[in-house]
Amino acid sequence: MSLDSTIHAKAIELIKLNYEMTSAAGSGHPTSGASLGHLVTALMYAHMRYEPSNPSHPGSDRLVLSEGHAVPIVYAACADKGVMIGKDKESWRAMTRADALTLRQLDSVVDGHPNPVEGFPFFDAATGSLGQGLSVAAGLAIAARADQLDKRIFVLIGDGESREGQIWEAVDFLKDHDLKAVCPIFNCNVYAQSDKVSPQQGWETTEKKLAAVGYEVLVIDGHDPKQIMDALNRHAEVQASGVGEPVAIVAKTVKGWGAESQQGNGHHGSAVKAGEALEAVLAEYDEKGKALGAYALGGLRVPDMSPRKSVKRETGDSVGFDKALEQFGMGDVIEKGQIATRKAYGVAVKALGHVNTEVFSLDCDVQGSTFASMFAKDESINSRFVECRIAEQNMMSVAAGLSAGGKIPFASTFAKFAARGYDQIEMAVNSGANLKVVGSHAGITLGADGPSQMGMSDVGWFRTFTTMKRPNGEPGFYVLTPSDGYQCYSLVREMAKYDGPCYLRTLRSDTEFLYSDDDEFKLGGHEVLCKGKDLLICASGHMVHVASAALEQLYDEGVDVTLVDMYSLPFDGDAILDLANECEGRILTLEDNYGGGMGSAVADVIAADGGGFEVNQMYVKKCPKSALSGEETLRACGLGIEDVVREAKEMLGIS
Amino acid sequence: MSLDSTIHAKAIELIKLNYEMTSAAGSGHPTSGASLGHLVTALMYAHMRYEPSNPSHPGSDRLVLSEGHAVPIVYAACADKGVMIGKDKESWRAMTRADALTLRQLDSVVDGHPNPVEGFPFFDAATGSLGQGLSVAAGLAIAARADQLDKRIFVLIGDGESREGQIWEAVDFLKDHDLKAVCPIFNCNVYAQSDKVSPQQGWETTEKKLAAVGYEVLVIDGHDPKQIMDALNRHAEVQASGVGEPVAIVAKTVKGWGAESQQGNGHHGSAVKAGEALEAVLAEYDEKGKALGAYALGGLRVPDMSPRKSVKRETGDSVGFDKALEQFGMGDVIEKGQIATRKAYGVAVKALGHVNTEVFSLDCDVQGSTFASMFAKDESINSRFVECRIAEQNMMSVAAGLSAGGKIPFASTFAKFAARGYDQIEMAVNSGANLKVVGSHAGITLGADGPSQMGMSDVGWFRTFTTMKRPNGEPGFYVLTPSDGYQCYSLVREMAKYDGPCYLRTLRSDTEFLYSDDDEFKLGGHEVLCKGKDLLICASGHMVHVASAALEQLYDEGVDVTLVDMYSLPFDGDAILDLANECEGRILTLEDNYGGGMGSAVADVIAADGGGFEVNQMYVKKCPKSALSGEETLRACGLGIEDVVREAKEMLGIS
Repeated sequence: MSLDSTIHAKAIELIKLNYEMTSAAGSGHPTSGASLGHLVTALMYAHMRYEPSNPSHPGSDRLVLSEGHAVPIVYAACADKGVMIGKDKESWRAMTRADALTLRQLDSVVDGHPNPVEGFPFFDAATGSLGQGLSVAAGLAIAARADQLDKRIFVLIGDGESREGQIWEAVDFLKDHDLKAVCPIFNCNVYAQSDKVSPQQGWETTEKKLAAVGYEVLVIDGHDPKQIMDALNRHAEVQASGVGEPVAIVAKTVKGWGAESQQGNGHHGSAVKAGEALEAVLAEYDEKGKALGAYALGGLRVPDMSPRKSVKRETGDSVGFDKALEQFGMGDVIEKGQIATRKAYGVAVKALGHVNTEVFSLDCDVQGSTFASMFAKDESINSRFVECRIAEQNMMSVAAGLSAGGKIPFASTFAKFAARGYDQIEMAVNSGANLKVVGSHAGITLGADGPSQMGMSDVGWFRTFTTMKRPNGEPGFYVLTPSDGYQCYSLVREMAKYDGPCYLRTLRSDTEFLYSDDDEFKLGGHEVLCKGKDLLICASGHMVHVASAALEQLYDEGVDVTLVDMYSLPFDGDAILDLANECEGRILTLEDNYGGGMGSAVADVIAADGGGFEVNQMYVKKCPKSALSGEETLRACGLGIEDVVREAKEMLGIS
Repeated sequence: MSLDSTIHAKAIELIKLNYEMTSAAGSGHPTSGASLGHLVTALMYAHMRYEPSNPSHPGSDRLVLSEGHAVPIVYAACADKGVMIGKDKESWRAMTRADALTLRQLDSVVDGHPNPVEGFPFFDAATGSLGQGLSVAAGLAIAARADQLDKRIFVLIGDGESREGQIWEAVDFLKDHDLKAVCPIFNCNVYAQSDKVSPQQGWETTEKKLAAVGYEVLVIDGHDPKQIMDALNRHAEVQASGVGEPVAIVAKTVKGWGAESQQGNGHHGSAVKAGEALEAVLAEYDEKGKALGAYALGGLRVPDMSPRKSVKRETGDSVGFDKALEQFGMGDVIEKGQIATRKAYGVAVKALGHVNTEVFSLDCDVQGSTFASMFAKDESINSRFVECRIAEQNMMSVAAGLSAGGKIPFASTFAKFAARGYDQIEMAVNSGANLKVVGSHAGITLGADGPSQMGMSDVGWFRTFTTMKRPNGEPGFYVLTPSDGYQCYSLVREMAKYDGPCYLRTLRSDTEFLYSDDDEFKLGGHEVLCKGKDLLICASGHMVHVASAALEQLYDEGVDVTLVDMYSLPFDGDAILDLANECEGRILTLEDNYGGGMGSAVADVIAADGGGFEVNQMYVKKCPKSALSGEETLRACGLGIEDVVREAKEMLGIS
């Protein structure tokens, strides 16, 4: 059969290059690549609708290599087909075999694992940390559906990798949202790093698991071209008709396929030594080709791409907070004079949803707590609400996929539970995603529920990304902790305008208004609430209000304080230095999470300056517990109003 | 039937108290508790082998409430049975109904979610962040097996909660390790916070999923006493005989069972208002009891506990590094003069395994990279090696369970992938666990594999826990980044001796020896490598070697440097201040991860002092990419030897 022999021949050609590349680099996973040789060939030469000359074409089918370590086999195909590479569209050029052989070099776009930001637009997301690709694909599929593109997204998943629970979160998610455009392909090549995979990840159990959750499962020989093509065509058929259960493919493959010397245990992630050893392996493949009667007939062709429909996009800015509250029948809030920032977030994301068709809201079954419910319950926009159920890892990667599909995803859950998706968030940053993470119930003022629900270490983690820059010079993350509703609302608008990762921390309890629609807030900003000459207090979130109350007492004692609302990390360090300078270099920082956060960022600035200023950091210095009110918890953790007053007085030597 | 009516009566009594408690607290999840009323009654009054007078008895059956928000129903049972409460065994007293009514109060041991460290020894682990209980139970079961205790561990899992992928990682894990002592009970009460659970989490699909992965699944009416008892007895039978597939129970329950006013959507997590509303609900339950003919016959009794067998324990200290290397046939390393710290970790954990029967090694299918393989491949100790496959979340919670079972778990994976388990690690800290996390391939010197495999934000996150104290005054975490093999080996020994959470960061590449077996290292320590008077360089891990090389060049230029190996966070800040003072207050910090880490911890100390010292932090300020060597990556990120020399000279005003 000509298709058979042609695919065999091409697969062998790609597998050989995959060995050559890893030998040249001195590291990599060529045997994993070999197990994918036929699947990648069938996809990229005979099934996927895409244009090598425009790999980021929004209408093209996509390939997500969830088992990112196998990437050389995809690079080999891209080199052969001349897929465009380069950081900017202006500098794109067709990839060559020579490019492939620069694998893992410092100045190469051919990174060790899929890495779009280094100049490989064929990929939508950085992968390599396992178990995330199927979720990314789900996000791409939701974006495609919104844009009325009938593209399909193929995901190659390792069998060992499928132990990651996130894969099964994604499998459920695809069913919930009827995302038949996604084609999960489990590459069951039996061997993992240490040994054979567990029987729980064998093809038989994988088939049963997928059938149990409601998939039509096609078990195929992943080195049989016809079986592969039939399975892909069946997936296409179901996707096109919408009839039947979604299709998943379980491919039985051989790690190190084609070269017996590379098979069995102990061949994970080791490159063959260049020279004789490599030549011997390549010769094995030539023999294998002959034995299979593999010859390149040509005639493989990529199908035509579906034309892109034009979907009307609106990306306007939303109205002010007062107006939004009134529009949503919440005008009483203005008179009440207070609102929880989590609620202000709900108002803000809903208002944005009305004017910006690219804004999506995602949530993990806590919409009533995060107030994503305001978006979810608004029928005029909730086709763009994505209920992710209790599965934070999947949500973060779905959001990354939505971003890769051109959308602006706001992914909300408790600040505490966002930690479940930190690795996914880091991979999204590495992918250049436009991700907005929203963590509610930040800090200890949550009170009653106790430490299992409190975001305590979130600032420390996200702050690391405020210390590094993305390729465009912007910080890896903006971390935003608004203190009142107007500020929160305004910052959500700024988040939507900005193309890059942001983390918004919202509070459970109501806080009094400090601002109005006339105040402007920006990413990287801070707000001076009052100016004094004795002490600079830098506070964030709820602690701005504690500071504010302490201020009055301090004023009565003759202490004149500058109070700054530090709502953003990073911030303008020079401006803070100037303010400190006006207060004789005495700085007190207040935050209601563990250390390593905002106060430490202030200490970084002060210590770098070396001007002899003093930073006294108040934060939570022990594990909190439940209490009936946030105020009690604050006092129990030494962050009550009296504690602040006492600390301030001590700094000034007032007894 | 007397058992039926007695269990109904007791369940109703407990459910009523569960409503009263949450009404008194003004928050909580009484309807979730109601759905568990019969299951908890059957377990705690008629099935579990435990002593209320000694809830932490090592031989007793355990209850892990994975859906922690339902905890009032368990508190109600504990109050009724007089289970002992209190922080220290010396101060234990029997819980009363009055205690139950202090739910969520600041000075109450009855926390908002299960929280053993606040004085509730009946629980082994803090829960409330969902999806973790089954993994904790798996760890408890492994510990019990090692101690030859035939106890069983019951886990109550919510249906909405079972969307968490970690549950399915745990389900596979239990099969892999044949842990039939664990009894997973899925509480399918249909409603989650926002709405009904997804059909993917309905009882039918849950049954199919469990059957697919190889469980005997018992679907029961979770409010039918006989069905519950039969199912629990079937689990006991299979556990005792070891014959057959493991048993899992899928219980169909009603959220708000017994009170129609509390059922259906919209009743998640809201307490009934105390007073009339509460009285009306309690009256509904009285009516329900009458309708069921529920009456307390007595006669419920907890079975006898199995006597605890005595297992021989050894907890000695291991030999020195040189001796261990020789014993393990690796004496050539000493002559070679270098070893990767990840390999030194492998030697250390294996040597510990030989002398300490409580040390366990866990790994996520990267044992060949972390060198946990040295433990795994040693047949004299590898009954205590736990292969967790590629599922980091599960591993961290299994480790927490092992700790609760009295073991010392060392859980290793790449530093990058440890982030998959951060929330699990935080819950372990909250639980008071003795957890040792080992992250290999830390920082950018990994080089070739690229950013998807590099631990970049780990220091920032773990550092937050070095800023807070556990109840015993020890830090929440020690973060250890050894620079050479001797130091690494020594610190692993210290980790084993210390009862508390530690995080060890190891490097992929070999580093030259700086120390010997004569050097002593301690948690919280630092090492002064040389003393000068112009500049204090604080470096960690690989950067100690970069600094060392830079030192020579600087010496040639007349710059006299103090070099400190900052291998621990936290550290003795006063000592660092003194050293800085001897160097005219000039400090340069070097680390090869993102900021917010060690350098920032130094800045905290300096800024708190306010003495005018200057801290210049060098760290990774952009997302790294692949390069063929670690040195290339360091230079590309501005952390090469020349970069350090240049920066040092600039600080001293030398051009």
